[in-house]
Amino acid sequence: MTKEAMTVTPWEVKGIVDYQKLIKEFGTQPLSEDLIKSIEKKAGRSHHFLRRKIFFSHRDLDLLLQEFAAGKEFALYTGRGPSGKTHLGHMIPWFFCKYLQDAFDAHFYFQITDDEKFMYQPSLSLEETNSLAYDNALDLIALGFNPKKTHIIIDTEYGKTMYKLAIQIAKKITASQAKAVFGFNDTTNIGMYFWPSMQAVPCILPSVLQKKSIRALIPAAIDQDPFWRVARDVVPKLGFPKPAAFHNIFLPSLLGPQGKMSTSEGQHATIFTTDTPEIVAQKIKKYAFSGGKDTLKEHREKGGNPDIDMSYRWLTFFEEDDKKLKDIYENYKSGSLLSGELKQILIDKLNIFLTDHQKKREKAKKDLDKFLLKD
Amino acid sequence: MTKEAMTVTPWEVKGIVDYQKLIKEFGTQPLSEDLIKSIEKKAGRSHHFLRRKIFFSHRDLDLLLQEFAAGKEFALYTGRGPSGKTHLGHMIPWFFCKYLQDAFDAHFYFQITDDEKFMYQPSLSLEETNSLAYDNALDLIALGFNPKKTHIIIDTEYGKTMYKLAIQIAKKITASQAKAVFGFNDTTNIGMYFWPSMQAVPCILPSVLQKKSIRALIPAAIDQDPFWRVARDVVPKLGFPKPAAFHNIFLPSLLGPQGKMSTSEGQHATIFTTDTPEIVAQKIKKYAFSGGKDTLKEHREKGGNPDIDMSYRWLTFFEEDDKKLKDIYENYKSGSLLSGELKQILIDKLNIFLTDHQKKREKAKKDLDKFLLKD
Repeated sequence: MTKEAMTVTPWEVKGIVDYQKLIKEFGTQPLSEDLIKSIEKKAGRSHHFLRRKIFFSHRDLDLLLQEFAAGKEFALYTGRGPSGKTHLGHMIPWFFCKYLQDAFDAHFYFQITDDEKFMYQPSLSLEETNSLAYDNALDLIALGFNPKKTHIIIDTEYGKTMYKLAIQIAKKITASQAKAVFGFNDTTNIGMYFWPSMQAVPCILPSVLQKKSIRALIPAAIDQDPFWRVARDVVPKLGFPKPAAFHNIFLPSLLGPQGKMSTSEGQHATIFTTDTPEIVAQKIKKYAFSGGKDTLKEHREKGGNPDIDMSYRWLTFFEEDDKKLKDIYENYKSGSLLSGELKQILIDKLNIFLTDHQKKREKAKKDLDKFLLKD
Repeated sequence: MTKEAMTVTPWEVKGIVDYQKLIKEFGTQPLSEDLIKSIEKKAGRSHHFLRRKIFFSHRDLDLLLQEFAAGKEFALYTGRGPSGKTHLGHMIPWFFCKYLQDAFDAHFYFQITDDEKFMYQPSLSLEETNSLAYDNALDLIALGFNPKKTHIIIDTEYGKTMYKLAIQIAKKITASQAKAVFGFNDTTNIGMYFWPSMQAVPCILPSVLQKKSIRALIPAAIDQDPFWRVARDVVPKLGFPKPAAFHNIFLPSLLGPQGKMSTSEGQHATIFTTDTPEIVAQKIKKYAFSGGKDTLKEHREKGGNPDIDMSYRWLTFFEEDDKKLKDIYENYKSGSLLSGELKQILIDKLNIFLTDHQKKREKAKKDLDKFLLKD
């Protein structure tokens, strides 16, 4: 593993990500223990993504919670760029939105950006990204969101409403700003230039559709933050509240701690929501980077290193039980838990989830219409 | 009158326009006598805009006519930017489209760009441009187009279809191209960057809606040509035929031969379609630049100069009868026709048209739905 320089943009994540550095660079707030307690208290329940700071940074979350305490409704917003099948990394903010919707009974807007992925990826047709949008939507619905309060936007299917709101945002963003924030240049196509205004629309859509001022809370991976910086600058000029943001760390690649799990970087080592139990087992056995020792004898004597072990790291995302996770950590470190055994724990954990998810995903096909916003 | 340098862009026309120079600069074809004869023959009738070369330049019109002769349908496309009320200058291409639709029985697509005018004009709200779009549409309908073959697009009302097609065009246009062709810079908003792709959509819409390859013919003032240059570059890459363009000269300002009649340059001297006969008379009497002599005696002796007389120049647009126009020219030049009399001929001509137009414009309100394309 060579050490790559860190790059974190909405379209590329490379290198070992230094999240504390991102907080400083992006100018966001670290998630404090007080704020965690405040969320848990208001939510009436805890979540391991909070306890483990998988959600680690925010903008105006404290303000949003104060408003909520004063009786003001908020809306959730996150999304998906349909450039391929859904993998587990995509779903981290979705799991958390499910927790937040259950706890706060909030409307939830989910934007699937078939327009952006088509315009960004030279090789993808609009038919492909649109078809992937419908496919990816099933994974969201399968998580059991409330159909009365969950609104899926496939951009091109809701284009009349989206475009009309986007141009009002676009009028307030200069090319110069778009270049500075998103790294656009003269070779970038004019659709991508416009696109940040489309991504900002769901920040104001709750207020527009519900005809009152509703602040959006956006749980999303930290690489999406540039969009919220621009949106927070513009939408108050249109009379809407600045969206609050809640940032998660990336589910790392199975291959090692650099970057994030990404279909484009390592298709073979990516766990898709449609993978069979056998394929999941194969991928983890073959590709999950191990912090174990080279020989059984050495491992039993000196113990493994869970901190660099990708199976362990993944369990911090997928094993909700703190006690179980702690035991795994200690047993691995002491050498009583072997690499293969650790991998098997992850395999079992994922396959229990995925087997159930795949059934719900099939059922979701008939529920799509309940969720889709259409012009 | 100081002589200003010529500027001709989609958003600004200044100075004395040298149309021969524009043909060279833009790289278009001058309208030849042979081509005029060919149109007249195929159309089965003549039009004074052809005979007087008010339409003076084109791209691929010869090709389009050959295809028509071989049995291939074409579609007409022109439009309107609704930044204010309709004035007579806007309608020059519309009159000609009426002639072409009647002669060739062509489908006619008319785009009203409420999105663009909103994004371009800092002072205009989207509610205003949208309301003006509906108002301006009445002037088109009043000209008697065939409702079965005439399709009015108000961009934001047809946004789903428009956006989905526009992103396919936008993917093929770089920021660099947009800057070079339209003069965009770093202070231009990102909505305007995207916008040329929206203006290109009606070039492909006839083919998309009629599900066969149909070339568009765009009669429009020459300042719009940059849009067609870009569209002609891009749409063949998407499998559609290059649009053909047919360019008209500007109806000049009443105030003199510089620029074009424009509400923003001289509201008081602009003839709107809703002006009463009294207002039309006042405006022309007060503002129409005269080529007459300073005194009655001098005029009778030396004659006037019709070539710089705006009332005469306007009659070249509005007096269809060549014989009548020639008589006016000669009588004015000889001094037998006075300035006030020439102005009265124009006033009468316009008021006959406008009185009838205003009745039809009222009736058009109930016909709007027959013409509007809506998602």
